[in-house]
Order: sequence, then structure tokens, then C-alpha cells
Amino acid sequence: MTGLSLELVERDVNLMHRLRLTIAYDGRPFSGWQSQSNQNGVQNHLKRAFLALTPKATKLHGAGRTDAGVHALAQVAHIDVPYGRFPATTWITALNSHLPPEIRVLKCWFVSPKFHARFSAIGKIYQYRVWNHPVFNPLEIGRSWHIPYQLDLDLMRQAAARLLSTHDFASFAANRGKPDKDTIRTIHEIKIRRSRELLTLHFDGNGFLYRMVRMLTGAITRVGAGRGSLAWIDQLLLYPGKAKASYTAPAEGLYLMRVKY
Amino acid sequence: MTGLSLELVERDVNLMHRLRLTIAYDGRPFSGWQSQSNQNGVQNHLKRAFLALTPKATKLHGAGRTDAGVHALAQVAHIDVPYGRFPATTWITALNSHLPPEIRVLKCWFVSPKFHARFSAIGKIYQYRVWNHPVFNPLEIGRSWHIPYQLDLDLMRQAAARLLSTHDFASFAANRGKPDKDTIRTIHEIKIRRSRELLTLHFDGNGFLYRMVRMLTGAITRVGAGRGSLAWIDQLLLYPGKAKASYTAPAEGLYLMRVKY
Repeated sequence: MTGLSLELVERDVNLMHRLRLTIAYDGRPFSGWQSQSNQNGVQNHLKRAFLALTPKATKLHGAGRTDAGVHALAQVAHIDVPYGRFPATTWITALNSHLPPEIRVLKCWFVSPKFHARFSAIGKIYQYRVWNHPVFNPLEIGRSWHIPYQLDLDLMRQAAARLLSTHDFASFAANRGKPDKDTIRTIHEIKIRRSRELLTLHFDGNGFLYRMVRMLTGAITRVGAGRGSLAWIDQLLLYPGKAKASYTAPAEGLYLMRVKY
Repeated sequence: MTGLSLELVERDVNLMHRLRLTIAYDGRPFSGWQSQSNQNGVQNHLKRAFLALTPKATKLHGAGRTDAGVHALAQVAHIDVPYGRFPATTWITALNSHLPPEIRVLKCWFVSPKFHARFSAIGKIYQYRVWNHPVFNPLEIGRSWHIPYQLDLDLMRQAAARLLSTHDFASFAANRGKPDKDTIRTIHEIKIRRSRELLTLHFDGNGFLYRMVRMLTGAITRVGAGRGSLAWIDQLLLYPGKAKASYTAPAEGLYLMRVKY
């Protein structure tokens, strides 16, 4: 009897369940989402917070990487934690008490072990902010891209319209040594809005290649500045990877807004 | 002849004209608007920029002081500079090249010597930002006040309504040793809006006492949290200076939006 109950307890302790997290962070103090050898990736900070709370936490999977300087309002991640350690809402406060204030866990809930932050994702929404005025707003430092010259919104919207729907976006992906096997993506929507000096580009797609949103923004604003033609955009889509968009908007204007499942 | 023309030149050199400036700053890196012995007031930085461009610049007058941490989207100042030194728009770029990026001169134009940034002002508009959610948004650090508990917007608006129009606001002024001679002010409008987690309080008045906007915000949110009654607000107005509102909202949520002339 004693042996049996001990075995039950041990099995109980080994029971894990999957925690899904929504995380916001200011991209500036960190070396991007991914764990780094300098231990300053957002993932490093989260992993340390988990390990402080339970030695049994598994690997933490994020919906996708964000580069250093890129912000997230709702990054999604999952991790397996011992059953019964905390209720989901307690995980929020417990994790936040072990995280720097520039990283905040907004939501936690238990999900099916079939849920995978990266592989279950069916799309992402990004926003890119441009401060379009001769003088930069001091409160936008590190939060938007300063473009001092005039931009033609009509031209930008025409450029954006050409990028919609399914294309091979190899020309809009930064080369990381190894080429992406699959560079075909679908962009559902690109909305461009102006509110006085602030321009926001809203990207909704089934997925984005490495640096793709920043390269799309670079190309669209280049057309808006009259420095690139609509035919140039067409060429980039027509000959994927043969040419490169080669204008990458800076990281600090980019925000991961939502991951869709 | 030679003597006469020299005299004319000298008189010309001594001719000054008045420059009006609109200035934006992030309040965090500085010790408030006013010149400080640590040389880190916004005024210190502006004065150094002027002195780098002309040794003849006079005293710089601001529309009003802002405390350390308080932001400004459109502070107004004036200064007298030698006639013909630069056209007004060149002053913008010349000053900005001598200022830290967290201070930006947005506009410059020449005005009548009768214009005085402080004494000509007929009113000011401030905004106060509150992040009202159990978890603080990392991108709001230093930019809004985190109130994690629920606030009743209806009660807040009722409290605000009581503060409108002309009152002796002595109960809503921080004591700086010497009492203000005149503590009567008129508040034209207090608008309270919620956009998801972000609450903004918009104050439009003919002038505000030292820390008054922060003390008004402190009192209004206290009522909204159910920790202060509407009768308490009435008492504070009825017995000016006898009681003190004594809850001062933190500096980092406050923005000087506009000075009215």
C-alpha cells in the first residue's frame, strides 16, 4: 500500500500541463526574443523566472522571434509546468515578480497539450510606426522610425496593394546564410493610416519571413518618398530572391500586435 | 562719415528681436523645466544651445514650470536674439543640433516684443495618462500612472464636474513654503476618456497652481476607486487650504499639451 501510494504521488508530481502565455515587452533593453549567450533574450528572462518558480519547467516555445529593439504587445508562448503548482492567474503575478518591468506576462491559461505557440499559429498582425515630420518627437525615440521628408500616402497605398495576397516573398527576406525553404506567404491586409505626424502601417498575414515586415515597410516608404516605383515592387515579386528590397526599416518602429490561432 | 556708419552698424548689431519657440520634451532625463544648479533643467539645455549660437541671447522665459518627469508636447518660451542672426526656421535646426534628442524645438517664429511666454498666456491644456489594468504595459513605463484596481468612470466624471468653473483651489496646491497669493483659478473643461486600458484625463483651464493637475488627478482617481467621496471634493473646495487633497498623481503621467494665448 505504501509503495503504491508513493508511486501515485510520484506520477502525480510528474504530471505536467501546458501553460499558454501572452507577453508584452519593450524591445529596447533586450537582445530580441530568442535566448542568447549573453542571457539577455526575452526568452532567457522568462526561462529564469520559470526556473525560480519550478525546477521542472520544460522548454519555452514562442510564436516567433522578434529582433533586438522590436516591441511586442502580445507575443504568445507555451511551456509545460507541473500540475497543481499554481492556478493560471497566480502564474501571471508570480512570473511578473521575477521579471524586469520591461517584460510583462499579461495572460496565462492552461491549454491542451496539442497547442503549440509556433506550429498552431495561423497568422500574425504587426504594426509599424513612422514619425513623419521634419522634427522627431522626443517621446517617440526608440518607438518609431523618423522619416523627415514628405511621403505620398496614395503611392504608399498603391505599393501596399501590390503586395497583398499570396506571393513568393524571397525578395523581402533578409539572408541569414541559409535560405528559407518556403518563402511563399499570404498577406491578407496592409492598412496605412495617418494621424497627424504619426503614420501606422498595419500588416495582417499568415506568416512573415525573417525581417519581412521591416523590408516591406522599407519598400513601401521608399515608393512613398518617390525613390522607388511601383514597377520596382512588381519586379521584386516577379523575380523572388533575384533582387532584394534591400531597404530595411529600423527595428524600433515594429510591434508584434497579435498572433492568430 | 566713417564714424557715422560704424555707429549705424553697432546700433544694428544691438538690435534684438523676440523669438517664440514651441518645445517638446521627454520629462524623464531632466530635472524639470526650470534651470537648476545641476545644469540639467530643460531651460539649462536650451540656454546652452542659444549661447552656442549667439553670445547675445537674453534670458529664456517659459510659459510655466514643469516638474522633473513631466512631459511636454508643446511648451512655449520666448527669448530675444540679435536681429538677422538666422531666419526663424533655421533657428529650429540650429538649436536642435545643439540639444539632446529628448528635447526638440518644434517651431520658431519672430513675434512682437510685447509677447511674453508666461504673462501673455491665457490658459493651458494638460493631459494625464493612467494605465488601468492589473498588469502595467511595459511600453507605458515613465509615461503613465499604473492603477491596477478598478476605477468607476461615472464617479470620476461626477468628481470632475464639481471641480469645473472658478474656485479657490488652495486645497489642490502643493505647499512650497510660501503660499500662492492668488489661488483662484478657472477650469473650463475636464474630459475623462477610456480607450481599453488607457484612461486619459484632459484638463483645460486658465492656469494651474503648483502640482494642481497632479492633485486634481489624485483626488478624481481616489473618488473613482471608492476611497474618497464626492462630499470630500466639495469640502476641499469649500475650505480652500484648510484641508489638502494630499494625493498627488506621479509626475510621469502628466503632459503639457498646449499653452493658449
